[in-house]
Parts: sequence; structure tokens; C-alpha cells
Amino acid sequence: MHNAGLIARYREHLPVSDTTRIITLNEGSTPLVAAPALGAALHPKLEVYLKYEGLNPTGSFKDRGMTMAITKALEEGYEMVMCASTGNTSASAAAYAARAGIKCIVLIPQGKIALGKLSQAMVHGAQVIQIHGNFDEALTLVRKICENFPVALVNSINPFRIEGQKTGAFEILDDFGGVAPDFQCMPVGNAGNITAYWKGYREYHALGKSDGLPRMMGFQAAGSAPIVLGHPVLEPHTFATAIRIGNPASWKTAEEARDQSGGMIDMVTDDEIRDAYKLVARTEGIFCEPASAASIAGLAKLSREGFFDTVTPRQGDRIRVICILTGHGLKDPDNAIAAASEPYTVEPKEEQILELLGFSPALV
Amino acid sequence: MHNAGLIARYREHLPVSDTTRIITLNEGSTPLVAAPALGAALHPKLEVYLKYEGLNPTGSFKDRGMTMAITKALEEGYEMVMCASTGNTSASAAAYAARAGIKCIVLIPQGKIALGKLSQAMVHGAQVIQIHGNFDEALTLVRKICENFPVALVNSINPFRIEGQKTGAFEILDDFGGVAPDFQCMPVGNAGNITAYWKGYREYHALGKSDGLPRMMGFQAAGSAPIVLGHPVLEPHTFATAIRIGNPASWKTAEEARDQSGGMIDMVTDDEIRDAYKLVARTEGIFCEPASAASIAGLAKLSREGFFDTVTPRQGDRIRVICILTGHGLKDPDNAIAAASEPYTVEPKEEQILELLGFSPALV
Repeated sequence: MHNAGLIARYREHLPVSDTTRIITLNEGSTPLVAAPALGAALHPKLEVYLKYEGLNPTGSFKDRGMTMAITKALEEGYEMVMCASTGNTSASAAAYAARAGIKCIVLIPQGKIALGKLSQAMVHGAQVIQIHGNFDEALTLVRKICENFPVALVNSINPFRIEGQKTGAFEILDDFGGVAPDFQCMPVGNAGNITAYWKGYREYHALGKSDGLPRMMGFQAAGSAPIVLGHPVLEPHTFATAIRIGNPASWKTAEEARDQSGGMIDMVTDDEIRDAYKLVARTEGIFCEPASAASIAGLAKLSREGFFDTVTPRQGDRIRVICILTGHGLKDPDNAIAAASEPYTVEPKEEQILELLGFSPALV
Repeated sequence: MHNAGLIARYREHLPVSDTTRIITLNEGSTPLVAAPALGAALHPKLEVYLKYEGLNPTGSFKDRGMTMAITKALEEGYEMVMCASTGNTSASAAAYAARAGIKCIVLIPQGKIALGKLSQAMVHGAQVIQIHGNFDEALTLVRKICENFPVALVNSINPFRIEGQKTGAFEILDDFGGVAPDFQCMPVGNAGNITAYWKGYREYHALGKSDGLPRMMGFQAAGSAPIVLGHPVLEPHTFATAIRIGNPASWKTAEEARDQSGGMIDMVTDDEIRDAYKLVARTEGIFCEPASAASIAGLAKLSREGFFDTVTPRQGDRIRVICILTGHGLKDPDNAIAAASEPYTVEPKEEQILELLGFSPALV
């Protein structure tokens, strides 16, 4: 098989044994798409690549952690898993639980998750419970219930999730023949992913499989930026629903990733995210969900502020930057339609269409 | 790069030269997902694999043809491309045209394409023109305009589309080490894909890269089954919008694929498609768009009717069947939500959730 899933690809780096029954949807091995037009639009010194995590089976990076979390839950004898979610985690948990033949319960903030994600949890047969509250409240409830009942928690505080997600860093390094990028830009919500990537980069480096470490640059939405502000945000807001989180579970490890790598965690406004979301769709043909575009919005902000002017590239004359695009744009079709202009509607007549295109029927 | 796109992977089988500028979104190399639970649910003799084409960059198999079509349009000097679409073609054309930096015009039947697909064409900056008419009328208009104006037609009657799409067959054969499957089940709409796969299977076989040929089993929706009925359908209908086509452009070559391979083209009802759509989501954790599920609905129908009872497998004791899942379920979130039961909504209180789960709070 060209791609038999990330546990098959990186088995020696993951906590599975020869007898473990692997639950996989052939996730991982996502494309690293060169983005020359985007890079040129932002800063002349940049060489930008997009890690298109939306091409995981359920359309987000969550599948990397979920193949591990569900595999281990099954190995430990659980017949029920549970998570709180802004949408992507529940979609992934529902799909992998269905494949494993076990039950999945998801708690989501009512009215605050994107349409595509809700449809996924439902179609895979998860029990979906919407609460009149936010993600942070949902996670608190899930933690309590999983402590007291025979239910496996599959949020990213589950350490197996981080193990699976670290393989994203392995893939980037393998794609570049062990040459570490200069920077990695990524959205920060519950902060599990920046934690996982940093773990992956460090592990490969410790094994001599890479020549260095990137600086980790995380970006929160301005209305949901607890790590930047230094305190939890009680009522987080942003149209980028996947990072609408006021009290990240992996706060401390995200700060470690930032500090150990010489990186930063900054914030970008919803307008900046929206501009980046359109820019990458129109210059590179890549459709990501709004939260994913925070990575590009952050890169754009740094470029504008002159951050890269004085940076010396690790190799050659260009600064190599990876932007992690965490989820597919199809997760949130409503936002794409809202960001575009209305389509034209006409009768099925050639003249009407020629007129719209600015062609003269007389030329026919 | 682990996956640099299908032209890079299969360059020697495709009409490109060393100087061709390749427009790619790193499409192709999609997972072939084993479906043991689904197979067991249908017929004891089946070994089923799902070719998950929804994991192409824009979420459907159309990207395979579009990387070729846009690459060649650019090589031939076009600055504008155009297509008629039930949604997936327009999404793909819009994305690849954006990446190439050229203009894209799409004609779609008003009110008859899925939400996700509409959002894609719009976000990539295509000029979207909705017509008060169906797909077949849209295609007729596009053909006329592209004949008379400097606009490249990128529907599947463009031969480069078929060239790109044939690589799906190469991947399946490569994943199985050159052993051809017994059967391939796939949806049939405009009939370009069954044409392309059959071309790919024959080419690999002629080159000695496979040990045989599969039987090609195409399935149309009962309300849009012109090939099965033997005449065009003037007002095609089905909830599987991607195959809502009454007069397929590749009709003749689809019949050739059927006849040369000893296969069949049959039809399945919307209810059968809907059941298959839910079945694969719940047994295998794979979310496909409704049209894709026609392949599984067809396989289920054949299984029920005893078709496989007397079939001798090409190798071993199991009949190996590939089902092509042409598009991701996220393309059409509304149908997924319609197919599921309403989620529960509760206050963020532990007792209420425990009650829904059937756990007794007294146990805490």
C-alpha cells in the first residue's frame, strides 16, 4: 500500500506492539504543497510550504491523534469513548469509533460548530450532545465523566493523541530529507498540536534524523487569545470556530514549545484571518478552514512588521516556512460563501453568458 | 516529497514533456481503505476495498483530470478555462485555475449543486454563473462558447481529463503489486470516470504491469439512468447531485468499458444509495458524498441478488472488489444531517449528560 496509515509508517516511534489491533483510516502522509505565489505576496525572502492536513480522512489533523487514541482505547478494553469538541475532534472520534465498532459520545457547544463538522459526527453514528455552554465547559464535563465511568477520554489531553500528532513533524522532515525548516507557523486553540509537533521535531532531532529544529510560531485568534494575554478568556469569540477556546488544555506545553524553540505565540484578528483565508484560496488554490488560515495570517503579520528582514536562513538564501493548514475548507462551507460575492443567475441562453464574460456575440 | 502529485508519479504514462510547467496540488495517491466490516455485511465471499477519492485536494476525483487539463491549457496558451458542472468539476477547475493564475468560468444548474461545492468555486475566485436549467443544458452552452472564443473547455470531454483520471487505475494496481481486482464498482454520471479507469487498466495490462483486467460495474441513480434505459433522460433527478446527468458526454466509451470488460451498467434507487451512504459511514468510518455511495449500493444489490454466489475469484478464495468513492461527504453536509437523527441539547450539567448516557449519578 502506498499509504497504510501513520502507525504503519512510523510504528517504531509509536507506543504500539506487534499484537496491537490498529484502527486506521489510512490517515497521514498529507501533501506538503509549495506556495510560491503566496510567499512572493508576503515577503521576498520567504519559501513557503503548506502542510495540507485537510486531506486526512475526516478532513483535519485530528485523525493523526485519533488513530492512536482509538487503537489504544480498544487495546485497553474500552467500549465507549468521549470527547468535547469545537467540531473536528468529534468528527474524527466518531469516524474512528465507527471503524472500531465502539460507541462514541461527543459534547459540543450548541450553535458554535461549523456545519460540515456537525454532519460528520452525526453520519458516523456518534451520540451528539449539544450543551448551552462553550468548549471549555464541555471539556470540564467530559473529564469528570471519564474519571468516574468506564469511558475513554479522547481529547488531546489523552497522551496517545499527542503521540499520533507528532508524526506531522516526521513527515515534514522526511519530505525535506532531514533538513529542518526555519519556522513553523500554526494555529493555536487547545494547544495540543503545537505541543505534538514540537515533540516530533525534538524526537527526530535526538535520533539524528534532522539537522536542527524550527522555531515554533503559534497564532491565536484575537478574541480567543489566552496564552498571549496570559490569562483564561471566559467568553472566547472568533469566527474561526476551531480555535474558539479560552482555556487551552495544553497551555503549559505550548509555552514550552515556544520558549525552547525560540519562537512566539501571537494573535491575529478575525479580519486578518479572513484575508489570509481568501489569499491562500485565490493565489494557491488551497481551501482551508478559517482557523487554519491563522497560520498564514500570522506569517503575513510578521512579514508586514519586518520580522524576517533581519533573519538569516538556516540554509541557502531563503527562509523556509511551513504553515500548518489544520483542516479542509469544506468543514465550514458557510464561511466560504459569506466571504465571496453572489453568483450570477441567468437563463440558459448563450447571449446572456457571453455578455457576462464580456464577449461580443457578433464575433461568433 | 512523499507525494508530489500524479503527473510526477506517472509522468511516463502522461502527455507532458520536460519543459511542461506542471500545475499540481499534490493530488492522487489516495488511500485504498480495506473495508472488512462492510464486505462481511454484504456477502461472505467479498474482499472489499474503498478507493477514497474524497482525499484529493478539492475533495473529489476530478482533481486527477484537472491537473492535466489545466497544465495543458496553460501550455497551449489559454488564459481562461470554462466548464459545466454539478459541482465537483467546478470546484476542481476553480482551484487549479487559481493556482495557475488564469481565469475560470463555471456554469452550474441553479439550486441543484451541493453547498460545499458551491463554496469551493466561489472561494477560489471563479466566476460562477447559475443557469435556470440542468447540467446537460449547461454543457451544451459551454461547448458552444469554447468553440467560438479563446476559452479552454475543461469538462471530461477534454481528452487530457481522461488521461489524468486513468491514474486511479494505476494506483490500485500498484497498491496490489500488479494483481488486478475481480471487480470495480463505481458511480456513473457523465461517464468520464469509468472511461478513464478502463483506459488505465488496459494500459497497465498492455505494458505487462498487471496480471489481468477487472470487470467494470457502473451504477447510475434510477432517476438519472440514461445508459441503463438506452435513451437520454430529459429531466434527470436524484438526491445524488453529482450523477444527476441525463445525457452523459462519455456514453459510448462507458458502454465500451462495460462490454470489453464483461461488466455491467445498472441502476440503484435513491433509497438504496442513502442506505449505502449510511452503511459505509457507520461500519467503516468513511464519509463519502451521496453519488459515491452508488458504488456500494450497486455492490449491495448484486450481493443481495446472488450475483457473486457463482463467481470464481481470480486468485485465492475471496472476490476482490474495489468501490470508487468519488467525493468526500463534506461536499454535501446537508444530506448527512438530513440522514441522521437530531442531536440532544442540554444545560452544561453533569447529571443531565449522565442521564442521556444511561449512567447513574449515584455511582460517582
